[in-house]
Amino acid sequence: MQTKKLLLFHPLKLPKNLSRDESLYEGFGEASPEAKASKNLHNFFNYIAVKIVSAQLQSYNPEAYKELMEFLNTHSLNDGDKFCASLMRESSRHKGLALRILEVRSAYCKHDFEWDNLKRLASKMVDESNTKLMREYVLETSPATEKETGK
Amino acid sequence: MQTKKLLLFHPLKLPKNLSRDESLYEGFGEASPEAKASKNLHNFFNYIAVKIVSAQLQSYNPEAYKELMEFLNTHSLNDGDKFCASLMRESSRHKGLALRILEVRSAYCKHDFEWDNLKRLASKMVDESNTKLMREYVLETSPATEKETGK
Repeated sequence: MQTKKLLLFHPLKLPKNLSRDESLYEGFGEASPEAKASKNLHNFFNYIAVKIVSAQLQSYNPEAYKELMEFLNTHSLNDGDKFCASLMRESSRHKGLALRILEVRSAYCKHDFEWDNLKRLASKMVDESNTKLMREYVLETSPATEKETGK
Repeated sequence: MQTKKLLLFHPLKLPKNLSRDESLYEGFGEASPEAKASKNLHNFFNYIAVKIVSAQLQSYNPEAYKELMEFLNTHSLNDGDKFCASLMRESSRHKGLALRILEVRSAYCKHDFEWDNLKRLASKMVDESNTKLMREYVLETSPATEKETGK
C-alpha cells in the first residue's frame, strides 16, 4: 500500500504509452489532444485573418471595411468556418471578402505563425506559472505572515 | 482606384512586416498571437494533466480520486492556474494532488505533446476547411440545384 503514495508523489516522467492511452482522453471524444488543439488554433487563425483583412480594408477600401464591421456585429467569430460560410452567402461583395479571409488564414497558418515560438512560450509559461504558484503558497504559509501560522 | 480591387482580391502572401504590425492585434492587448495561443495551450495542458492524474488515481488511489472528482465538480478548469491555486489551499492532501498536476503539465508540455503534429494538423485543417467551404458554396449555386439559378 506504500506504493500508492510513492506513485502519487514521486516525480515521474510520463511514459509514452500512458500519455497516448485512449482512456485518458474521454473528454476529447475521438480526437487526440493535438487534433483538439489544432481545431482551436484553426478558429484562432480565422480570427487573425479577419483582423488582418479588416486592417487592410480600413486603409484601401473603407466601404468594404464598413460592410465587414457591420457583418461582425451580428456574426460570431467563435466558429471560423461557420462565420466564413455565412459571409460567403451574404452578398457577392461579402463573398469576395470571405474568399480573401480563407486565403489569409491559410497563408498565416503556413507562413506567418511562429510555431517554434509557440512551443518556447508555452514551455516558459508552464515553468513560470509553476514557480509562481508554489512561491505564492510558500509566502502565504511562511511564519513571517500572520495567516495560518498555527498550522 | 483600380488598385483597391487588386489589393483586395489578388492572391497575396502576407509580408512579415504586415503580420507583425502591432496595430493589427489590438484585440490581443499587449500579447502577440503566439503568446495568446500559448496561454490557451497552457490551460489546455493543465486540463490534460488533471485527466492524466485522475486516471492514475482511479487505478491506484480511489480515495484521492474521489476527492479530486469532488473538487472538480465545484471548481472550473478554464483557468488552470486558478484551479491549482485553489486545490493547493483546500487541504494538505489536495496540495499533494496540485503539486502532482503542476509536475505532469510541465512534463506533458515539454515531452509528450506532439508539436510537429499540431502544426501538420492545423495546416491540413485549413486546407480541408477552405476546400469544403468553397465546394459547398459551388454545389449550392450550381445550375443543377433550384436555388439562386437566376443570379
